Amino acid sequence: MVWEIVALVAGAISIAIAAYLFKWVMSQVNESKAMSEFSEAIQEGSAAYLRRLFEALGLVALVLGGIILVAVGWRNALAYLVGSVCSASAGYAGMYVSTRANARVAWAAREGIKKAFPVGFYAGGVMGLAVVGVALIGMTVIYLLFRDAQVVLGFSFGASSLALLAKAGGGIYTKTADIGADLVGKVEFGLAEDDPRNPAVIADNVGDNVGDVAGMGADIFDSYVAAVVAVMILGYELYGSQPNGVQYVIYPLLLCAAGIIASLLGMLLVRTGESNDPGRALNTGTIVTSVFFALLALGVVFLLGIDKPWGVFWPTVAGLLAGVVIGFTSDYFTDIDQASVRNTANAAKTGPAILILEGFSYGLLSIVPSILGICVATIAAWFLAQQFGVAGTYGVSVAAVGMLAITGMIISADAYGPIVDNAKGCAVAGHESEEVIRVCDRLDAAGNTAKAITKGFAIGAAALTVLALFSAYAETVNLDVLDLRTPGVVVGMLLGAMMPPLFSAMVILSVGRNAFKMVEEIRRQFREIPGLIEGKVKPDSRLCVDIAARGALRELILPGLLALFAPLVVGFLLGKNALGGFLGGSIITGIIFALFMANAGGLWDNAKKYIEDGALGGPGSDAHKAAVVGDTVGDPFKDTAGPSLNTLITVMSLVSILFGSAIAQFALFGGL
Amino acid sequence: MVWEIVALVAGAISIAIAAYLFKWVMSQVNESKAMSEFSEAIQEGSAAYLRRLFEALGLVALVLGGIILVAVGWRNALAYLVGSVCSASAGYAGMYVSTRANARVAWAAREGIKKAFPVGFYAGGVMGLAVVGVALIGMTVIYLLFRDAQVVLGFSFGASSLALLAKAGGGIYTKTADIGADLVGKVEFGLAEDDPRNPAVIADNVGDNVGDVAGMGADIFDSYVAAVVAVMILGYELYGSQPNGVQYVIYPLLLCAAGIIASLLGMLLVRTGESNDPGRALNTGTIVTSVFFALLALGVVFLLGIDKPWGVFWPTVAGLLAGVVIGFTSDYFTDIDQASVRNTANAAKTGPAILILEGFSYGLLSIVPSILGICVATIAAWFLAQQFGVAGTYGVSVAAVGMLAITGMIISADAYGPIVDNAKGCAVAGHESEEVIRVCDRLDAAGNTAKAITKGFAIGAAALTVLALFSAYAETVNLDVLDLRTPGVVVGMLLGAMMPPLFSAMVILSVGRNAFKMVEEIRRQFREIPGLIEGKVKPDSRLCVDIAARGALRELILPGLLALFAPLVVGFLLGKNALGGFLGGSIITGIIFALFMANAGGLWDNAKKYIEDGALGGPGSDAHKAAVVGDTVGDPFKDTAGPSLNTLITVMSLVSILFGSAIAQFALFGGL
Repeated sequence: MVWEIVALVAGAISIAIAAYLFKWVMSQVNESKAMSEFSEAIQEGSAAYLRRLFEALGLVALVLGGIILVAVGWRNALAYLVGSVCSASAGYAGMYVSTRANARVAWAAREGIKKAFPVGFYAGGVMGLAVVGVALIGMTVIYLLFRDAQVVLGFSFGASSLALLAKAGGGIYTKTADIGADLVGKVEFGLAEDDPRNPAVIADNVGDNVGDVAGMGADIFDSYVAAVVAVMILGYELYGSQPNGVQYVIYPLLLCAAGIIASLLGMLLVRTGESNDPGRALNTGTIVTSVFFALLALGVVFLLGIDKPWGVFWPTVAGLLAGVVIGFTSDYFTDIDQASVRNTANAAKTGPAILILEGFSYGLLSIVPSILGICVATIAAWFLAQQFGVAGTYGVSVAAVGMLAITGMIISADAYGPIVDNAKGCAVAGHESEEVIRVCDRLDAAGNTAKAITKGFAIGAAALTVLALFSAYAETVNLDVLDLRTPGVVVGMLLGAMMPPLFSAMVILSVGRNAFKMVEEIRRQFREIPGLIEGKVKPDSRLCVDIAARGALRELILPGLLALFAPLVVGFLLGKNALGGFLGGSIITGIIFALFMANAGGLWDNAKKYIEDGALGGPGSDAHKAAVVGDTVGDPFKDTAGPSLNTLITVMSLVSILFGSAIAQFALFGGL
Repeated sequence: MVWEIVALVAGAISIAIAAYLFKWVMSQVNESKAMSEFSEAIQEGSAAYLRRLFEALGLVALVLGGIILVAVGWRNALAYLVGSVCSASAGYAGMYVSTRANARVAWAAREGIKKAFPVGFYAGGVMGLAVVGVALIGMTVIYLLFRDAQVVLGFSFGASSLALLAKAGGGIYTKTADIGADLVGKVEFGLAEDDPRNPAVIADNVGDNVGDVAGMGADIFDSYVAAVVAVMILGYELYGSQPNGVQYVIYPLLLCAAGIIASLLGMLLVRTGESNDPGRALNTGTIVTSVFFALLALGVVFLLGIDKPWGVFWPTVAGLLAGVVIGFTSDYFTDIDQASVRNTANAAKTGPAILILEGFSYGLLSIVPSILGICVATIAAWFLAQQFGVAGTYGVSVAAVGMLAITGMIISADAYGPIVDNAKGCAVAGHESEEVIRVCDRLDAAGNTAKAITKGFAIGAAALTVLALFSAYAETVNLDVLDLRTPGVVVGMLLGAMMPPLFSAMVILSVGRNAFKMVEEIRRQFREIPGLIEGKVKPDSRLCVDIAARGALRELILPGLLALFAPLVVGFLLGKNALGGFLGGSIITGIIFALFMANAGGLWDNAKKYIEDGALGGPGSDAHKAAVVGDTVGDPFKDTAGPSLNTLITVMSLVSILFGSAIAQFALFGGL
């Protein structure tokens, strides 16, 4: 009981500091009316979209809650609803502060990076700390009430199913607006990025907030909770009957508490200092946090009195290290100074086709370091655990938590990105000086570096988490072996492996369809609103916001249903072995497609930036036009489909565990 | 003994009829000097490339043969060399006749489709019949000599390793030339396809022959042999010790004999008839062949006296049916009349970016029907076998042979494609009338339909074949289970799953690099050769042929080494379980990427054709330019990377079986 209270206290501290930072950010001033107006339009658009989204998701939650109530039980149904609400609240809070921080960052940028950076970073910190605080308190309370890891799984499923829809919906929204704004505004009318005459600019900026802030927050919330739940379930199944075995169940909660404290210490030390280099400040923060966390984790292991302390400590550290290594190496292929980006940019000289082929190929090559990292982490965690007398599966799952425990710091650095990106939009809209825009650009560049690292972290962590969930599934349905030589498992794997590409295709087609409507509407406005192109009249941004929002919600239905029901169909039709194969297959292609899409997208983006920085003829050249095509292709890769795949495989795993016993009992061809 | 002689006789008949058809084709006349010259340039270029390729591969074969000699034994090493030589000869023969048939088809086209079609089709038939005849005789002789399925595996490995390099090399060659010719000739100078002023036109036509004819022949040769070998190994391992168990080992050889007879009957009935529709004629031929084959297979099962006749017959039919269904449905997504192609083409109105995204997404969606088909075939074959008392793994492997037995007909229809494609080139080069070119176009369109069907067949068959090889591997190394819950298998799967994307990326980058050099050379010729663009002087085609050939060979080294040695590294490092996982992972992503790349490429190609047929502004419009970008992106997808993946996964499976016992004995961390 005392340990659960420690976890609750850590969660409460996290939320309290988030509240403090929120007050501090809101106390910063912004005296530009034009920027305020721009910012308010974004606030309005974001809030309107999230309200709509949550209304729609509320309905989904009630239906799914009902199904869980009938098929699994009231405690899981309750936990599910609480999880959905917690995840939604954390996302909403992050969006709330980020849409209010943008203009304040832009105003502070008048006084230079040193003044502006903390506004952006602490606003991101509100999101980071709120997410981990709410998640930890939510899980701990559910566990205190029911003392059953399988019920905490309900909480996790609530968070994940919400995250999937928030992430995919946000991704469709943001890219609809972005592509629409670019294709008509930039290409047809030659407007600059964020030009306020462009009717889709507000929608584009709203998209950054609902996609990158709220969606991403929900996404990491979901991995964080799922990783903890997987350890809790495995701890219970493997050690629950031992004396003191419960320590293995609550260990991940205390790791999270340690991670929160470490993140707070790390955030205190994030300063741009004399170098004035915000990118380095963010990275230093991540590394300092990791070191503190490792020390605290050692304390937790011994204070908790786990009987095999080193068997849980070393896998934790292995996971943490793997996360840091994957994070810092994953941007190798997308770094603007690397051969992959240069070669891709050079291909632009022959037009868009070879550029697309190069980016596609380097994107595929880029999966290698991360997959090797995941493989090494898996084997290391497994052996380190076994070496010291703990089950290998438990070791792998603990490694996932070790990687995710410093989420508070990671999300803070990540949420910083869209905030400063929006700040630049505010500065442009407010007709600020070149100097201010340059400061915003530097802040933005640091955000992109941080984002690359987070992305590596997120995918690495998700991979270990789903491997852990996979073990939890096997324990839950009592699979002794999952034999790749049986037809059920083979067919299950093929079907599961098909899911991530299928889901990706569906959401990318959604973006295409929706962007088409957006393009028509922007063209209509330029055609029909006199004085718009001359800048005398304002565009009707609301209509564009509305197209993006409606489209995103409508297009979510099919992929959402697919994710939630495909595992049930496979399970109830072909049985628990086939479903195990299904999960295995989905994990494998899920990791591959997530890495490929994120990196290929980043690479095209940077190839374009490389040309915009003056290479190969610079902006306006034919090479630049080709690079813009590459960037547009990469947009839904990196911001819509890619980042949804983590959540997709997590949701499918959770569904399978939740309905596992029912599937084991009632499957039609269970003997496969 | 008598049954093996039946197989030998069938093989001999096949080769005899191939020789007869060859004589017939060569007896057709071509009286156009211009066409003869064009055709001779292609003959010369193709022969020069194949000689170079085989010289290089001869070295590879000697080195690999040496390794096999030391690590496995002299009998396997010998079989390996024989397999390489047989595969190379079949490919060479096909190339030889196809490069001589093209001008003859074009000349015959002066008298209409009815006269020209048989010339093209029977020239394709030479290739089809030579491949199956040589393969069947080769396997049967090796089996007669050594009576050991594992030695026949050496033959199969020889065929497959040669096929991998021939296919990938041919793919790099053909797309280097194609992209180079298009980018400079069509886009920069506005020349038509096959315009003789374009210095890369000969190289482009040579590419069709070395890529689509010789490469594809080697590829199907390899699946055909591998499928038979998998059944032989499983038959021996499962039933070898039973009385009359040897019938299970020689059954696949007799299925092949039945397939040859059925193909001959089917080919006799291929006539354009009154409808004058060559596409329908080819499809009718395929269906008729299937029906004959099913009847003959029934005869084989009973004459052979297999103790569980229905347990082998029904899986055979299931495989055959699945092949036909997958073949005829696999072009749904790439058919010019379908929504996927239309939507992709419509996206061209907004430029190339959305067109690429649409094609990419529909390409991903297109994997669904084929994967469902493979799943159903697997489960059906498994259960039908078990139902009648035969092992499920044996059933699945027999289904693969059932699918591939009618290869003679399938290759004939497929090789027809590049021949008539080249015929059009001859007609253009010979300044034939519009009418003749129109006839060639119609012949070509039928070739494309046939190609879509073959592609489905090839991938479906390869999928079942590698599943069968997977079982053969497990039997060979005595894997009782292959548990997805152990870290070795999981890590092996991740590594294996990484291979097909990695290989694809490497060969696509090769095409990009090589095409770049080709573009420079073509530009140089137009710049430096006076009178070239006016058509007064001929271009220096040899230099372009040389660039394509050198590049293809140089670029083969790295992916070739990867395919051959990656399984050995994983096996000797992580052990036989991890290697099992590795194969499983590679099969899954191999199938997915092969389907995706083939279909996305076909779809972009047809979207371009749709616009060229007059839609959306027709040729020359902005939409057409966008569609050309899509087509260029799709070219290496569908003709380089995609078709190599079948062979990649087959080669990796064969390497693993061949070195299986050594791996089981000497692996470093074999306990994973």
